Amino acid sequence: MDIETLSFRDGRLRLIDQRRLPGTVEFYEANTYQDVVEAIREMVVRGAPAIGAAGAYGVYLAARQFRHEPEEEFERKLRNAVEDLAGARPTAVNLTWAIGRMMDVFSDHKESPREQSLKRLREEADRIAQEDVEINRQMARHGNEIVPEDATILTHCNTGSLATVGYGTALGVIREAHRSGKNIEVYADETRPRAQGARLTAFELVQEDIPSKLIADSAAARAIQEGRIDLVLVGADRVAANGDTANKVGTYMLSEIARTHGVPFYVVAPTSTIDDEVESGDEIEIEERAPDELTHIGDTRIAPEEIDVYNPAFDITPAENITGIITEQGIARPPFEDSLARLKGKTPPPRS
Amino acid sequence: MDIETLSFRDGRLRLIDQRRLPGTVEFYEANTYQDVVEAIREMVVRGAPAIGAAGAYGVYLAARQFRHEPEEEFERKLRNAVEDLAGARPTAVNLTWAIGRMMDVFSDHKESPREQSLKRLREEADRIAQEDVEINRQMARHGNEIVPEDATILTHCNTGSLATVGYGTALGVIREAHRSGKNIEVYADETRPRAQGARLTAFELVQEDIPSKLIADSAAARAIQEGRIDLVLVGADRVAANGDTANKVGTYMLSEIARTHGVPFYVVAPTSTIDDEVESGDEIEIEERAPDELTHIGDTRIAPEEIDVYNPAFDITPAENITGIITEQGIARPPFEDSLARLKGKTPPPRS
Repeated sequence: MDIETLSFRDGRLRLIDQRRLPGTVEFYEANTYQDVVEAIREMVVRGAPAIGAAGAYGVYLAARQFRHEPEEEFERKLRNAVEDLAGARPTAVNLTWAIGRMMDVFSDHKESPREQSLKRLREEADRIAQEDVEINRQMARHGNEIVPEDATILTHCNTGSLATVGYGTALGVIREAHRSGKNIEVYADETRPRAQGARLTAFELVQEDIPSKLIADSAAARAIQEGRIDLVLVGADRVAANGDTANKVGTYMLSEIARTHGVPFYVVAPTSTIDDEVESGDEIEIEERAPDELTHIGDTRIAPEEIDVYNPAFDITPAENITGIITEQGIARPPFEDSLARLKGKTPPPRS
Repeated sequence: MDIETLSFRDGRLRLIDQRRLPGTVEFYEANTYQDVVEAIREMVVRGAPAIGAAGAYGVYLAARQFRHEPEEEFERKLRNAVEDLAGARPTAVNLTWAIGRMMDVFSDHKESPREQSLKRLREEADRIAQEDVEINRQMARHGNEIVPEDATILTHCNTGSLATVGYGTALGVIREAHRSGKNIEVYADETRPRAQGARLTAFELVQEDIPSKLIADSAAARAIQEGRIDLVLVGADRVAANGDTANKVGTYMLSEIARTHGVPFYVVAPTSTIDDEVESGDEIEIEERAPDELTHIGDTRIAPEEIDVYNPAFDITPAENITGIITEQGIARPPFEDSLARLKGKTPPPRS
């Protein structure tokens, strides 16, 4: 992609406004941490890794805003800002993870002069962003190992450059497979209600010249049933220690249909998406979003006024439906309790 | 519903224009069979039973158009018209079935004076329309037997008054259960790409004051996974002799998820939807619709221009995922080869 999802320059966080794509390429500039909270909440920026990096810059912006406050006030205000940032979207763990890294730096430099501490926070945010691109490339290389020479790949939501600081997770693997000369075709779910598939993934696929078809979310099961799909690749917003995966609503459905038809189903996510503090998917909070995502399209109401709405943004794919989890450290395979713990550099839990 | 889906008066077929609902209540008037072909193809009228009745009036209109032609020319032109009508939407068998009934009447009255033959065609079309309402009420009564006193019911697409001449198939059962005093809540899939759930089903549910929630198609699996759903009720466009069912794309997916979670899954369809000339779902032609149903919303393009589209309108739910098929003659249960043949008043095929 020629367009940067996220960059920090001239003291401002610059985000491509993903609500307007692909029709309009417009940038959103965040000068304060409040601007970042709004950008995350309103989905100017989305995708777990991109949200993580944006959140990190949010912490830096907050520290800069409060730089002239006395010590105690500084810390209190910074911690408030951090809470607002972390609460902007509850399901994706990368946000909490990135903010955690920033706050570790803050704690390490509590005794340093304020300017020194700010400088270190800025460096850490830059590092998180830069690392994300490198991590994506590593995931893509590992992931490419499981992509056949000729493959039709189904994907859901947007997991490309726009969901990350660059390259992508599931779409990064697809990009790598295509660039490495494999004969790849992609079926992209439109991903209602916000149509990230139709708007963003289709946009990235067309830019990369990867042969692709856009389908309704409901048609994915039909495509699998017809034998059109060789492989399913999806991203993740949070992976529990047992491998249960929270991702964009619709992922669970795909995993069941793939399993029924013996189609391999892989999750592509950096190890920062693995939340080893959460044992299983049952403990993951699923964010519910506004009804108008379903009742309106743009400013036009399509459903009658009086109708109630249930609009969960994510669902949980149980570990047993997942063939493997592709990370920058390698591919974790079942049992995930062990393989994920090893990837996180921890001792696997005792087997019961 | 206070609004008639379909009526014939003053020599014209009057259809509520379902493309404009719920925002605008507007009627489409068909004076010629060509108008009827367009109405069916463009989905002014949709839903298998409603299409069947519209098609029947189409045959009558064609006969009226050609009434002054000499005998041979009359029959040739009528048969051409019938082919156009039947081809307007290939998957729903009710269209073929209703046209077949009309052509039987035509054949029976070949020797009669032309005016007499026209009169009989008009009567037959009226009968098909009137019977549909009565058949729906019978289906609703049979179907209500399997609805628990307290039930949350998931449904897909629109199978209500708007899909039929009146009352509805799956939504007819829901209506009946609600009117009979049961404590019913409905989850209605929005049903992309044409959003018949959001636009039409939600509209009918609100009009009937049935507690309901609109959900994204992808969220249905999540709702079932969470244990929110007690029963799935869907319609059908064609049921094969073995019970395999063609219905709006997305139905197959629901059937798989329902089976995984042990949720009963019923198809509600008149016996005219059972096509005993088709042994299994493999033989059913699945209509593919225009790409702009996915790339555009109204006149606004949401996906990039260069993207290809795969847009099947229907899918096939295998018989083994179906708990029962509710018809006006009673509820067919597996093995469907036998139970459906009995309902159609035929001898069941020999068991192998």
